[in-house]
Amino acid sequence: MTTDAWVNETLYAAWGQRFLVKRELARVKSDFQDIMVFESHTHGRVMLLDGVVQITEADEFVYQEMLAHVPLLAHGAAKRVLIIGAGDGGVLRRVLQHRTVEHATMVEIDGEVIRLAKEFLPGIAGDAWTDPRAEVIVGDGIDFVRKAADASYDVVIVDSTDPIGVGEVLFTDEFYANCARLLTGRGLVVNQCGVPFMQADELRETSLRRARAFADVWAYVAAVPTYVGGCMTLGWAAKDATLRAVPADEIRRRADIAGVLDTTGYWTPEIHAAAFHLPPYIARHLPRR
Amino acid sequence: MTTDAWVNETLYAAWGQRFLVKRELARVKSDFQDIMVFESHTHGRVMLLDGVVQITEADEFVYQEMLAHVPLLAHGAAKRVLIIGAGDGGVLRRVLQHRTVEHATMVEIDGEVIRLAKEFLPGIAGDAWTDPRAEVIVGDGIDFVRKAADASYDVVIVDSTDPIGVGEVLFTDEFYANCARLLTGRGLVVNQCGVPFMQADELRETSLRRARAFADVWAYVAAVPTYVGGCMTLGWAAKDATLRAVPADEIRRRADIAGVLDTTGYWTPEIHAAAFHLPPYIARHLPRR
Repeated sequence: MTTDAWVNETLYAAWGQRFLVKRELARVKSDFQDIMVFESHTHGRVMLLDGVVQITEADEFVYQEMLAHVPLLAHGAAKRVLIIGAGDGGVLRRVLQHRTVEHATMVEIDGEVIRLAKEFLPGIAGDAWTDPRAEVIVGDGIDFVRKAADASYDVVIVDSTDPIGVGEVLFTDEFYANCARLLTGRGLVVNQCGVPFMQADELRETSLRRARAFADVWAYVAAVPTYVGGCMTLGWAAKDATLRAVPADEIRRRADIAGVLDTTGYWTPEIHAAAFHLPPYIARHLPRR
Repeated sequence: MTTDAWVNETLYAAWGQRFLVKRELARVKSDFQDIMVFESHTHGRVMLLDGVVQITEADEFVYQEMLAHVPLLAHGAAKRVLIIGAGDGGVLRRVLQHRTVEHATMVEIDGEVIRLAKEFLPGIAGDAWTDPRAEVIVGDGIDFVRKAADASYDVVIVDSTDPIGVGEVLFTDEFYANCARLLTGRGLVVNQCGVPFMQADELRETSLRRARAFADVWAYVAAVPTYVGGCMTLGWAAKDATLRAVPADEIRRRADIAGVLDTTGYWTPEIHAAAFHLPPYIARHLPRR
């Protein structure tokens, strides 16, 4: 690709975003997907998997903060965290920001994503790769949750691609049943559920699957600049329905103890609490309570 | 343009959205701007002004509901409403949904926008054009606010293009000073302030201008699918700082009286209240309190 060519995101057939490329940095065909990293004019460096934007340096904070801080602080005493996917290391970094976390396992199927993130997007993970509390496994998340011991984690965070291609198996009944099994009593799982204005099926169908394994199924929203199309939803499946109703004041207290208060660009205790209030156009895709 | 060509939004030089066009419906050069209307594959019909998406049939509800319901219900007793811009009639329709509103004046500078909206986007305004409470003026909003009587409106809603081109004069000190003068004692003005992730200057500079004429200056957010780039901000300038702190329960009561409760796709009393909690990356562009 020549410098200053446009890259069109291919997520949707007839609408999408495009970036003017300043400099292409990598284009790799891994065993699982096509990976591209480029320098943009507007969003710092950008990583695409199979033509879909996964992360940009400029707005990654929105997604990572909401995917990590919300479940950990809603739980309130999470010591062991399992991350599936998230090969860029950004969720791992935000999880380890919580000094209350004792261990984080990250299972990413594609070692090339980790390698390229370390080389071209080192700021995303920061020191997380060498944190003594982190265990980074290049392997199959489905297999990992199948073999994981009962009640071995407090929180599971699934940062996958959409349920097409390599990410598809992370949205199955078996996967969620295993998540429920490996979680402790107040455990919960969150996962990225796409942008419902464009991908309502993704939210609707995976919510039904989660409801087979968890008592409380819901979603919360974040407006991620480069996950275009309005609010994205993060799926919520918990054993304890009180976890998503913790008031902002208590979330603030927990965040202070964890050491994450006033470190964020998007997340706040008030935004945490507000994120569970869904616009009707989104709420109607969730299972009726 | 041939059918099935792409239209690239030209708002930002190096990033943006694009639509695959199903059928071009109109392309007009008015006295003020280039207007284009087309049928998309994904968002129904779309109107662009000077290459920038103004409205799509599929997601207009998000923007209109938040621009109309939030100020009217925060005020709580708005009888007379002034709308500047909004030539598609969508804000007018949402304002007139409030049976508590006695009169709405809409001042749109470009009669061609109204004509094309009536012809190609009739569902956006619905019956608003013929509502006996509506007064539609094709004229200059700046001039209108200059000549309007003191304390003649309860709420001003500015639905303009960005502060470039024809919309620029709607963001000046003189405009806001006149808004303050023509508003009643608990009056307030809201206006579209762009997407701060991409256009932080717009929020920062117009907030400073509003602060010269109003005691309480803030913003609230909405995630509008085709105003790409995360949250958009709607500027808030009020004489009374309590208006943006009305609890969701009271907003619900007022919405019920006004007849707008359970009519919405995005707005809810909880989302109303939550919208004033800004992510730090946005809040830092507002004047310090």
